[in-house]
Amino acid sequence: MSKEITSRAADYSQWYNDLVIKGSLADYSAVKGCMVIKPYGFGLWEKMRDQLDKMFKDTGHVNAYFPLFIPKSFLSKEAAHVEGFAKECAVVTHYRLKNDPNGGGVIVDPEAKLEEELIVRPTSETIIWNTYKTWIQSYRDLPLLINQWANVVRWEMRTRLFLRTTEFLWQEGHTAHATAQEAIAETKQMLDVYATFAEEYMALPVIRGVKTESERFAGAVDTYCIEALMQDGKALQAGTSHFLGQNFARAFDVKFSDKNNKLEYVWATSWGVSTRLIGALVMAHSDDDGLILPPKIAPLQVVIVPIYKGEDRKDLLDAKGKELAGQLKAAGISVKFDDNDNTRPGFKFAEYEMKGVPVRIAMGLRDLENASVEIARRDTKEKTTIPMDGLPAYVSGLLNTIQQAMYDKALAYRDQHISRADTWEEFEQLLDGKGGFVAAHWDGTPATEEAIKEKTKATIRCIPLNNPPEEGKCILTGKPSKERVLFARAY
Amino acid sequence: MSKEITSRAADYSQWYNDLVIKGSLADYSAVKGCMVIKPYGFGLWEKMRDQLDKMFKDTGHVNAYFPLFIPKSFLSKEAAHVEGFAKECAVVTHYRLKNDPNGGGVIVDPEAKLEEELIVRPTSETIIWNTYKTWIQSYRDLPLLINQWANVVRWEMRTRLFLRTTEFLWQEGHTAHATAQEAIAETKQMLDVYATFAEEYMALPVIRGVKTESERFAGAVDTYCIEALMQDGKALQAGTSHFLGQNFARAFDVKFSDKNNKLEYVWATSWGVSTRLIGALVMAHSDDDGLILPPKIAPLQVVIVPIYKGEDRKDLLDAKGKELAGQLKAAGISVKFDDNDNTRPGFKFAEYEMKGVPVRIAMGLRDLENASVEIARRDTKEKTTIPMDGLPAYVSGLLNTIQQAMYDKALAYRDQHISRADTWEEFEQLLDGKGGFVAAHWDGTPATEEAIKEKTKATIRCIPLNNPPEEGKCILTGKPSKERVLFARAY
Repeated sequence: MSKEITSRAADYSQWYNDLVIKGSLADYSAVKGCMVIKPYGFGLWEKMRDQLDKMFKDTGHVNAYFPLFIPKSFLSKEAAHVEGFAKECAVVTHYRLKNDPNGGGVIVDPEAKLEEELIVRPTSETIIWNTYKTWIQSYRDLPLLINQWANVVRWEMRTRLFLRTTEFLWQEGHTAHATAQEAIAETKQMLDVYATFAEEYMALPVIRGVKTESERFAGAVDTYCIEALMQDGKALQAGTSHFLGQNFARAFDVKFSDKNNKLEYVWATSWGVSTRLIGALVMAHSDDDGLILPPKIAPLQVVIVPIYKGEDRKDLLDAKGKELAGQLKAAGISVKFDDNDNTRPGFKFAEYEMKGVPVRIAMGLRDLENASVEIARRDTKEKTTIPMDGLPAYVSGLLNTIQQAMYDKALAYRDQHISRADTWEEFEQLLDGKGGFVAAHWDGTPATEEAIKEKTKATIRCIPLNNPPEEGKCILTGKPSKERVLFARAY
Repeated sequence: MSKEITSRAADYSQWYNDLVIKGSLADYSAVKGCMVIKPYGFGLWEKMRDQLDKMFKDTGHVNAYFPLFIPKSFLSKEAAHVEGFAKECAVVTHYRLKNDPNGGGVIVDPEAKLEEELIVRPTSETIIWNTYKTWIQSYRDLPLLINQWANVVRWEMRTRLFLRTTEFLWQEGHTAHATAQEAIAETKQMLDVYATFAEEYMALPVIRGVKTESERFAGAVDTYCIEALMQDGKALQAGTSHFLGQNFARAFDVKFSDKNNKLEYVWATSWGVSTRLIGALVMAHSDDDGLILPPKIAPLQVVIVPIYKGEDRKDLLDAKGKELAGQLKAAGISVKFDDNDNTRPGFKFAEYEMKGVPVRIAMGLRDLENASVEIARRDTKEKTTIPMDGLPAYVSGLLNTIQQAMYDKALAYRDQHISRADTWEEFEQLLDGKGGFVAAHWDGTPATEEAIKEKTKATIRCIPLNNPPEEGKCILTGKPSKERVLFARAY
């Protein structure tokens, strides 16, 4: 089985595609740039979504749903916003098909042309702030803490499963506040929610930071982000939280009367994570034999595989397998007893390895006699023989151990891959060799940032929060700098 | 408050709109025919969705996600299907905007025209069966039991909040089977799931039946449905389950090799319910004072309103209110303690009546002294004074009582509104007067069905399952008929 997967060393990019496809997470579709999320991949997304949703609700947010379509004129109302999204918009121009009178099959009915074109939402600030205008009059209507789970479309020329697809699933929070201070606190709170989710559930260590002006969300005053490191040394932006100032309130004329009856523009935030997180998860943890999924979000935590030798004792193994599965389930563990007798155990082992199921339990007739089972960890591939008695407690503990071990391993890798460069030579050598984040001085200008990107393909991933001040000289221009920023090549 | 709602007697249609808007379920949007589902309405949808999702999973289904866009050529592959949907398709023709060189703002870039137009999915049979072609080779790959929660777009000329909107949220199940028999069993099973959900959770009695040829889903061999009755005597189709035969397998060339290695086309079903159900819920149960929501799916089951008289004892009421709310929450009841002291109790009462919260608990200082509370049922408006001691058990029981009473009331109304007509005069009188379902004979031809619709605006809602055979004469043509069918005017 594992022979089917290209190794990381041979072709990292192909390795990733192999895992996504052969691990049953997603598939290509007939629509350019759009993917099909397969049941196993969607099960993973459901686990991630449900946990995030709980965290959003625990911080006082509610869900709502806004239209898929945005009138073209709305996009134009915020100058930076339209500049950022105009080049990747799917545009609906007609609302009807008809039979070609010349026999050419079904064609777009030219008479059913929309007066104003509709954009398939690339993000929903404009349609939402146009709505908020009717919902917000007074300080009593604030804060408005709303999230939406939705599909969005950004027309990408070069797509990759999960990492960059034309259509993707995400959540977008859009909040409205009476003061800048409160909106900034919300922006940071949601960044913390994302970081907690990434680290505690995805076992993915992240750096919290703020983007430079040129990497900012189109329409934001400040963009906060969490940045993760993949096994090939490239960074991946895993979530963003934007302080939008009063930009969208001004664009859509959303004012509220404060306690002194004075009219003021409303302050805004927006924040989102997407199915891209699944790509990050795959690339951060997996190996050449397949996916490695963290127990807290794995769609299936444990699989029990009976080792049949002939049919005569199959009933015994089945009975015990179901009993053990029942015990694990009762302990809150998601488990499958795979009694399919059309496939050999070796085939099953390889399949569950491919799918990254954290724990595999194998059980033959001799195990029955010994009242023990063989347990294999997916992350380390270690095998242990364990008494059946007390299995649920052992497996619960093991799942926690695996979750922690995956985080520790990713953290060690990440920390080993944050380097400091003080000369341009060092900087280039690090990027071309070791990879990872390079902490270097930068003169603070977009022009220098752009020049560095052109020379090295590295971008400033973020200025870390609580970054220590340090006098230095820009890695490229030698001009003065007051702090290091994190550069990396990135997805 | 309630004065703001138009009464049912005055204008049923306006009453409905008032409830949806003022009950905070949804709002109009800037995009023609699309609505905004507000947090309270979305909370209701989440409760419905989560319960349905559980029922789908309990019957062996898994979720997946397929692209929003469908290549135009795909729609054309199944003849009846394209005929049914061509006239209501939103069409994406371009993928980029640009600045108008003539200074006219942002325009569609004429150079970014798609080679093949993309349809925003009105339903997903075509894109899904095109995918299934790559997933199904052998009988071992069957059955495939997949559901998708998604947004779909059907360009409607006349829209109504929830009942008929251009974009709506729904689920669509798409299953693939080795035999016709198994696919038909699946179709019926999912109809039963829908009926159980409507009756047990929405308190909405439904008639299970099969559609006539002309009311069938475009591309189906048979369409099963559940039909409900609204308070104005009009019927509403609340869910459909389609046996698709081999139509889509033929259109997309999806074959499997059976156990004898013989290639056969795959058998299909599809089934769906949508946010339309929220419209049905509103119209079936509510009254002139606002919404009445069944406890099992109400976003909020109980509200506790303290009756403050001056500030001096507010702390006592707050402490007890929080204590009682905690007790109810611990008993699995969703509850809000509304300690907002900016609004008067009477205003709160009206607001929660408007929102259809099933149980209201009011509590003043005298109640504190008596260790009792006043409980009001939303459905009957009955008030009772109850000791605080044992409140959770009492409220749990009351929620069950309300759930059952709402169903019984709707069932009695529905059953009173199934009438038999044996002459055309009776038929017309029933439709124009009493309304509801009219069981009448029909000669079985689409032409007669169409003629009846033109004369009366009534359609055949369904041929009920287990319909007793009965010789008779068609209500319009007098031609022979072997069973009665159910006519009604419908949403």
